Amino acid sequence: MRNDVNRQVRLKARPTGIPQAEHFELVEAAVPEPTEGQVLVRNLYLSVEPAMRGWVSAVANYSEPVPLGAVMRSVAAGRVVQSRHPDYREGELVAGMFGWQDFAAVGTEAIQRKVTESDLPLSAALGVLGLNGFTAYFGLLDIGQPKAGETVVVSTAAGAVGSCVGQIARLEGCRTIGIAGGATKTALCRELFRYDGAIDYRLPDFEAHLAEACGSGVDVYFDNTAGPISDAVLRHLNVGARVVVCGTASIASWDPLPQGPRVERHLLVKRARMQGILVFDYAQRYGEALAALAQWVREGAICYREDILEGIEQAPDAIAGLYRGENLGKRLIRIA
Amino acid sequence: MRNDVNRQVRLKARPTGIPQAEHFELVEAAVPEPTEGQVLVRNLYLSVEPAMRGWVSAVANYSEPVPLGAVMRSVAAGRVVQSRHPDYREGELVAGMFGWQDFAAVGTEAIQRKVTESDLPLSAALGVLGLNGFTAYFGLLDIGQPKAGETVVVSTAAGAVGSCVGQIARLEGCRTIGIAGGATKTALCRELFRYDGAIDYRLPDFEAHLAEACGSGVDVYFDNTAGPISDAVLRHLNVGARVVVCGTASIASWDPLPQGPRVERHLLVKRARMQGILVFDYAQRYGEALAALAQWVREGAICYREDILEGIEQAPDAIAGLYRGENLGKRLIRIA
Repeated sequence: MRNDVNRQVRLKARPTGIPQAEHFELVEAAVPEPTEGQVLVRNLYLSVEPAMRGWVSAVANYSEPVPLGAVMRSVAAGRVVQSRHPDYREGELVAGMFGWQDFAAVGTEAIQRKVTESDLPLSAALGVLGLNGFTAYFGLLDIGQPKAGETVVVSTAAGAVGSCVGQIARLEGCRTIGIAGGATKTALCRELFRYDGAIDYRLPDFEAHLAEACGSGVDVYFDNTAGPISDAVLRHLNVGARVVVCGTASIASWDPLPQGPRVERHLLVKRARMQGILVFDYAQRYGEALAALAQWVREGAICYREDILEGIEQAPDAIAGLYRGENLGKRLIRIA
Repeated sequence: MRNDVNRQVRLKARPTGIPQAEHFELVEAAVPEPTEGQVLVRNLYLSVEPAMRGWVSAVANYSEPVPLGAVMRSVAAGRVVQSRHPDYREGELVAGMFGWQDFAAVGTEAIQRKVTESDLPLSAALGVLGLNGFTAYFGLLDIGQPKAGETVVVSTAAGAVGSCVGQIARLEGCRTIGIAGGATKTALCRELFRYDGAIDYRLPDFEAHLAEACGSGVDVYFDNTAGPISDAVLRHLNVGARVVVCGTASIASWDPLPQGPRVERHLLVKRARMQGILVFDYAQRYGEALAALAQWVREGAICYREDILEGIEQAPDAIAGLYRGENLGKRLIRIA
């Protein structure tokens, strides 16, 4: 840890598709001075999210793309080292949009919350007790609306969001089927995340295994992939099914829009619903999700797994690594 | 009108795609005898629906396909000429699933309702005061959930369902944009159905016209076509938009599933929803829709247009004609 410089990972070139290491550069800048109303945060953990692909994309998105030359947008968790805001004190732990850098001078608009659950690891504030957990919570419960006894299918089932979705669905009394890539991840689904079934989408007879595991069909599909995995799941929807569109990990690029089988007939015949979830729409209700998730974690009802990279030097290639499927669990970077 | 024989249009061959005249045959059968609990109905009007394409398809659907050799399934309106059920008297008008034939001996399961609005034409019971109107009513209000001031786009906007959707949306205080094929239908949209704008999808710069007409984007899209028309509309959804999937008129065949641009990114970025509507799911609430629609028709707040073919001989080619776009308004066949 160096206190005199602020190491930053900046966006150097705009990717088409998955951001690779060469789209970023690591630079040293001065540690910023917080202005009145701001705090200076010393980041300890940086998050790595599949959604970052969208944040750097020039294609229409829910937020302005990260400008070229700017610090990469990221959730991070850290410690307040200087405060010019009456609600924050030095030494407090906070999580928020602090970027891929050692230090951030930020106002309250960037701070998601103080991290006060001192019995749980700080890193959890970037995963199961952060946006990933909140996404799972609101996406599944508000949009998926699972009922006890229903079958819930989750893609990227061992991932930061998916693993949480599967376990919440299980707590709701649903039968849970996870889809993941490879034997290690499907074993993790069954053993740690307690899915009733886990299917490897790389198997040639994936859809037959899926159909068998689902038995009477799919009531809720929590979709983190789109692409051929989702095409297969959609063929097994039950009447009244809900599809939560959360991510599109299997689509290399959305510009131009890739082609796939049309979904209208499925939706019509099954009177099914597809709906997108963006966790930021639920910002006013994060407290509700946090309270529920923290309690479940303390009780052991929800387990989580982390994939922690060491050092900010790992950041530039970290998103591409997610899309290569190399992580097991929530990917983080520990920088101090 | 011949009382001694029952002319029937039967399914002769199973079409792949749009049913054509050669898939049906007109035969003469004996007038059936109603059994205890049944009534004998003399059909006066037969309905012709885009949905009939699905009813004769071997591809998975919401109902069993019409068997080869069976009378074509259809809504019809007629008069009870003999009753062996205590709730029905000779001379009463009824609407229900009576099939493409002169006479039907049916139980209460086939009867949708008695037609008692004697101040309105019987034919309306097959359109605006029947399944078409009910589809518009529940699809728009229950699934589309339009709010005053929002922009509602309707495809096949001059059709039996679409024209009703547009006018209900207008009554709800929405800005309404209709999409139809050709100058005659777009004029009908503007003049009779009072859309705020009507766009001809056959124009080469259709999407630019659509974008201009929608102004700030699309809040509700009532989709009767799927295909390239819908692909264009989806590119202009607003955040929180609702897409009501009601029909797929532009898709010639669903076997195999046709390809199109993937929708997931639209749904995710715009937190939008696509959901299928099947009117039969609302059977318990038809009375609510009928009361509202009949009142609107009486007040002149909802107009409708009919395309009435004369004689059951017209039936075999009537569905194909719908898909050729040759009708203006709800297509019916008057058979007596």
